Amino acid sequence: MKKTLFLLTLSLLIISCNNKQEKQINNGLSSEEKIDSTKIKTLFNSALTQGKSYEWLRDLTQNIGGRLSGSKEAAQAVIWGEKLMKEVGLDSVWLQPVMVPHWIRGEKEIATYTTNGVQKNVAICALGFSVATPKTGVLAEVLEVKSLEDAEKLGDKMKGKIVFFNRPFDNTLINTFGAYGGCVDQRVQGAAVCGKFGAKGVIVRSMTNSVDDYPHTGTMTYNDLPKEKHIPAAAISSKSANILSKDLQTNPNLKFYFRQSCKTLPNAPSFNVVGEIKGTETPENIFVVGGHLDSWDLGEGAHDDGTGIVQSLEVAYLFKKNNIKPKNTIRIVFYMNEENGTRGAKKYAELAKFNKEKHIGGLESDAGGHTPRGFSIQANNSNTALVQSWKKLLSPYGLHDLDKGGSGADIAPLQAENVTLVGYRPDSQRYFDYHHTSRDTFDKVNKRELELGSASMASIVYLMDKYLYNNQIVKP
Amino acid sequence: MKKTLFLLTLSLLIISCNNKQEKQINNGLSSEEKIDSTKIKTLFNSALTQGKSYEWLRDLTQNIGGRLSGSKEAAQAVIWGEKLMKEVGLDSVWLQPVMVPHWIRGEKEIATYTTNGVQKNVAICALGFSVATPKTGVLAEVLEVKSLEDAEKLGDKMKGKIVFFNRPFDNTLINTFGAYGGCVDQRVQGAAVCGKFGAKGVIVRSMTNSVDDYPHTGTMTYNDLPKEKHIPAAAISSKSANILSKDLQTNPNLKFYFRQSCKTLPNAPSFNVVGEIKGTETPENIFVVGGHLDSWDLGEGAHDDGTGIVQSLEVAYLFKKNNIKPKNTIRIVFYMNEENGTRGAKKYAELAKFNKEKHIGGLESDAGGHTPRGFSIQANNSNTALVQSWKKLLSPYGLHDLDKGGSGADIAPLQAENVTLVGYRPDSQRYFDYHHTSRDTFDKVNKRELELGSASMASIVYLMDKYLYNNQIVKP
Repeated sequence: MKKTLFLLTLSLLIISCNNKQEKQINNGLSSEEKIDSTKIKTLFNSALTQGKSYEWLRDLTQNIGGRLSGSKEAAQAVIWGEKLMKEVGLDSVWLQPVMVPHWIRGEKEIATYTTNGVQKNVAICALGFSVATPKTGVLAEVLEVKSLEDAEKLGDKMKGKIVFFNRPFDNTLINTFGAYGGCVDQRVQGAAVCGKFGAKGVIVRSMTNSVDDYPHTGTMTYNDLPKEKHIPAAAISSKSANILSKDLQTNPNLKFYFRQSCKTLPNAPSFNVVGEIKGTETPENIFVVGGHLDSWDLGEGAHDDGTGIVQSLEVAYLFKKNNIKPKNTIRIVFYMNEENGTRGAKKYAELAKFNKEKHIGGLESDAGGHTPRGFSIQANNSNTALVQSWKKLLSPYGLHDLDKGGSGADIAPLQAENVTLVGYRPDSQRYFDYHHTSRDTFDKVNKRELELGSASMASIVYLMDKYLYNNQIVKP
Repeated sequence: MKKTLFLLTLSLLIISCNNKQEKQINNGLSSEEKIDSTKIKTLFNSALTQGKSYEWLRDLTQNIGGRLSGSKEAAQAVIWGEKLMKEVGLDSVWLQPVMVPHWIRGEKEIATYTTNGVQKNVAICALGFSVATPKTGVLAEVLEVKSLEDAEKLGDKMKGKIVFFNRPFDNTLINTFGAYGGCVDQRVQGAAVCGKFGAKGVIVRSMTNSVDDYPHTGTMTYNDLPKEKHIPAAAISSKSANILSKDLQTNPNLKFYFRQSCKTLPNAPSFNVVGEIKGTETPENIFVVGGHLDSWDLGEGAHDDGTGIVQSLEVAYLFKKNNIKPKNTIRIVFYMNEENGTRGAKKYAELAKFNKEKHIGGLESDAGGHTPRGFSIQANNSNTALVQSWKKLLSPYGLHDLDKGGSGADIAPLQAENVTLVGYRPDSQRYFDYHHTSRDTFDKVNKRELELGSASMASIVYLMDKYLYNNQIVKP
């Protein structure tokens, strides 16, 4: 009897839960908004029951894998993307040629040091664009610093030494991209600062919230330093960074050894992959939806940015599947070379200008494939307010965050007055566990979270297409 | 030069991102709310930099593991919980004795069938409280149904057959608990319905959104059926369910075989683990914070409900660490036997009544340890409105969902007019990938997501303690 009562309570809870979902979706909406609400529900239902993105991602990440610009895998990904866009039935599909940097990692890097008679191996990887060490490696004392400014202050004292950048993420920032932004200057500029003063190399703490043994690669630069001042740069795992820092306190003269054989080859030919659904009313107005096809080489480029690629294409798939014919042209772009050069983005913007194309907006997905949280809006005040007015339509799907902010590295070059750019913002908590590491693999992506992202993106594209016309807000 | 420009843009983005976070937190708050906002920020900072919950969870899940009521592991977990509460420095810690059901799984279950000359093995597990099959197993034809009603309609036709419940989750429901609620009657009531008509056994599709090869256990009942009508009940993986359903279309007379040796032993002695921080002003008013210590036996009981246990204790830890002295008594409860009986919850409520304790509210965490989304509020209208008025304080941490709804199975018995019960609601998308399976293990929990949950819970307890007094709303 108690069980029956329990089950009755359970079913009442369930019914109230389901009713609530429906009620919440249509609560306090105008008749026009109810139409939009129904369309958005259709897009979500479709993504969650007929979505293709997860299997596309499996194919891209597991059959091709990591696809650094200039690599064989990146070239395979271009062919894969072009073929898939055609299969989805886009009105036209083409490739935009672009020359990209071609940096290769070479042999697996090694690093080690001995302290108090104990040899410790360090998880390390070269940073993108770094030069190799001499074949015999680099062996030198270590100076630990927490910032570029601290390093500058060391000046000539770093001559012949390895400089160790060890400022960790600020874990109190709720959005982990804020913490990344607060640390990444060490990775990008460390070698440029220290090469100037004759350091023998730089090692940098990996860009992550967690303490683990995976080194995180990423791009760096020597700025305008002459070639002879280019010094090898590498990332060590956050766990190794903690241990090394402790060991330096008791043994400040320990010598750190690392070896890497990476190099930059001549620029290589590659492509952006582009496809579009022609607009029915103002096809000359273009709305771009994209992510980047290239990835770092250590993992499979799943969350960065395989998810953005398959979600972008799924926007077009969901439009076609549900017979939504956009007024404006929706163009899907798989950008090449976001990771180390953003050459694809520059090429796309350059061609858009040259061909006098009129872009009314853009949407980029390059923050991982986790559960949806919202969009970041890069637009003028009135268009920002328009996007924010959709909150009641989007919040039943967990899309609450509609703040002004950046959109994404690949669409940002399209910024202009009246152009509405938005960046898809999934939950960021797990992102830097995987970012630029060997752990960025297919199994870290959840099917529903991925599909909810596709539907979120399709929904905002539907709304932008409906309410933006010649960059002006359409009153229904 | 381009690189320098890129970096400049990057750092501007970062600065604007960090400032935004601060601004967002204090935007449009009254002076009293600013005090609360600062306190909440302190709780989050503390959880994210000094939190203990993740290491506690590692210990509970990896050193003890799954801990079904009545098991050796459940007894170990009681000792573990009591010791840990004392270590955290609660003012008093005690055990509440309670008799719990003691069901054991026995040998690993097996299932198989042959169709068109091909033998197929099926991933299967017995349901909690099910009887065993005969030692030689059950072999019978299969009748597939989608609901209890369909099964009822079969009536005597099911005599000597195995009834296969195969209604899948409705994946279009955004909150996956809604989908669970829409299906779980098949698991709970299937055997009671079919035992009545003389079926030889029931197998049920696993309760999950995903299609995979993990069977999901869970509780079931025979209601008031006499013993001789108790038939064995088991769950098969969703993948097996799809394959079997397809095979039944081409071969409706195929015979399904399964064997399980589970049994229910006499009730066993166990305990709720209880500890409290005494209130400074009205210690007689009690606010309960808890989760359940028991778990299913197949995995490690990580998301269900190890996370709720360690988060509940972390609420007390964060209060003490930050020298927050509650006006009311905050009582942490590790409930025993939520999974198959909720005997701990009933015992707690019974003792509260017997001892004339005055409970002003409760908070339960039993929906997994994923990234925070909000709280579900089970209270009268004015107290619900009070909790909802904290949205501006909570939303900077991703806590947007503050709807009326159930709180949790363990605190629900405390429901009464003026008692404010809330359920912590993390993101639900991945939850049913792991729920009641061998996959519910420590590695599925993300440290930051867990800690954000602890801080979310501590924040709402801080607010409830401040603004609820003798069940009335305090005007600051």
